[in-house]
Amino acid sequence: MLSKSQIKLITSLKQKKYRQQHGFFVVEGIKTIHELLDSHLELHQLFTTESFGNGGTHEVLISAAELKKISFLTTPNKALALFKMPDLKQVVSEGLILALDDVRDPGNLGTIIRLCDWFGIKDLVCSKQTVDCYNPKVVQATMGSITRVNISYLDMEAFLNDYNKPILGAFMDGDNVYKTALPKEGVLVMGNEANGVSEAVENLITSKISIPRFGDLQVTESLNVATATAILLSELKRE
Amino acid sequence: MLSKSQIKLITSLKQKKYRQQHGFFVVEGIKTIHELLDSHLELHQLFTTESFGNGGTHEVLISAAELKKISFLTTPNKALALFKMPDLKQVVSEGLILALDDVRDPGNLGTIIRLCDWFGIKDLVCSKQTVDCYNPKVVQATMGSITRVNISYLDMEAFLNDYNKPILGAFMDGDNVYKTALPKEGVLVMGNEANGVSEAVENLITSKISIPRFGDLQVTESLNVATATAILLSELKRE
Repeated sequence: MLSKSQIKLITSLKQKKYRQQHGFFVVEGIKTIHELLDSHLELHQLFTTESFGNGGTHEVLISAAELKKISFLTTPNKALALFKMPDLKQVVSEGLILALDDVRDPGNLGTIIRLCDWFGIKDLVCSKQTVDCYNPKVVQATMGSITRVNISYLDMEAFLNDYNKPILGAFMDGDNVYKTALPKEGVLVMGNEANGVSEAVENLITSKISIPRFGDLQVTESLNVATATAILLSELKRE
Repeated sequence: MLSKSQIKLITSLKQKKYRQQHGFFVVEGIKTIHELLDSHLELHQLFTTESFGNGGTHEVLISAAELKKISFLTTPNKALALFKMPDLKQVVSEGLILALDDVRDPGNLGTIIRLCDWFGIKDLVCSKQTVDCYNPKVVQATMGSITRVNISYLDMEAFLNDYNKPILGAFMDGDNVYKTALPKEGVLVMGNEANGVSEAVENLITSKISIPRFGDLQVTESLNVATATAILLSELKRE
């Protein structure tokens, strides 16, 4: 049974300011909730139409109609959980780090977090204007990978200013990535969907790289930032 | 000014059976419509809140409120056009061909068409169960690339049975793509989001390839089909 104040709390968590105020974020779907229950993240409450068994005293059984009221999905998937947002960890700054300079689309950020998990990138650093990783659409798109990548929000210029290994950046006019010797340690910076890497950050880049086009030259469109990240991480990690 | 029958026709085009019955598909947004006007595709009607100039007798000026009634987007973007669906061309079957075995998500297909355009893949062949490329969400996600890739829907088993060059397929347990000698001509088959390549098609594959994971081994998730396609096309095209 859901109270009015619970419904109000949960639906408010769509917005970043209420997530920060309450310290919780929303996760939906049996499979992803199970992955988060197995992680270091702490469950606050689990609203579910079928008992999980391991939800303990945090579990609240609700009807499908109640789930529909609180779900952010078009097709709710049996359960919705509130987890506590973890404290931010320090950036380890060893190995390869991915940096996002104002990526705004939740689906893109979710896909990129999943890619970090796949390619063993431990640290993802985001500019303060990058979409919040606890946005429900981001959490959904990560398919559980959000628990395995250390994500920080920071002042990108200050971070890169203090960083003393190679700083690669993806640019339309960069060097052909297939013909560039790539470092095993460093930062790769990916820019905003519409505007690319900002000018202030561009000044701190030590090597501009680019994925060459093989198709007709009439097209000026760039690749989507998530697919470009996939290709560049693959290039950085392949032997 | 929009008539009731125009509204009925346009909204019906969300469904494949009505697209096939009428022979039109929907394109939205100033930028994409301009790209399609510059292509070989034939405009049927252009509904717009501001005159395009080159819409000619096909142009119908409408209000923002009318656009909202016919748009498939949450935030309509000034114009909606109906274009004639082109006749399917023969598969050229030279160079590299991408084949999709039951890819169902419109966003994934749109991203994959955009990748074909970027990597100069002329032919995209789709199994009959693959989502229709004239689905409005697919057209939107291609950002105009749909005009530059030859897309066919066919019986995948029959097509591959008749094809006598290498047939690569993406599998979780395939050979490490970074360590495999890849052909310059052939077909690359990508499978369904949930089930991968179907068994009947798997039997026709001559070389199974895989993108190795670099992260923790606890994760069983595969990469999203569009990001995996990005990485594999990059591997096939890089020198």
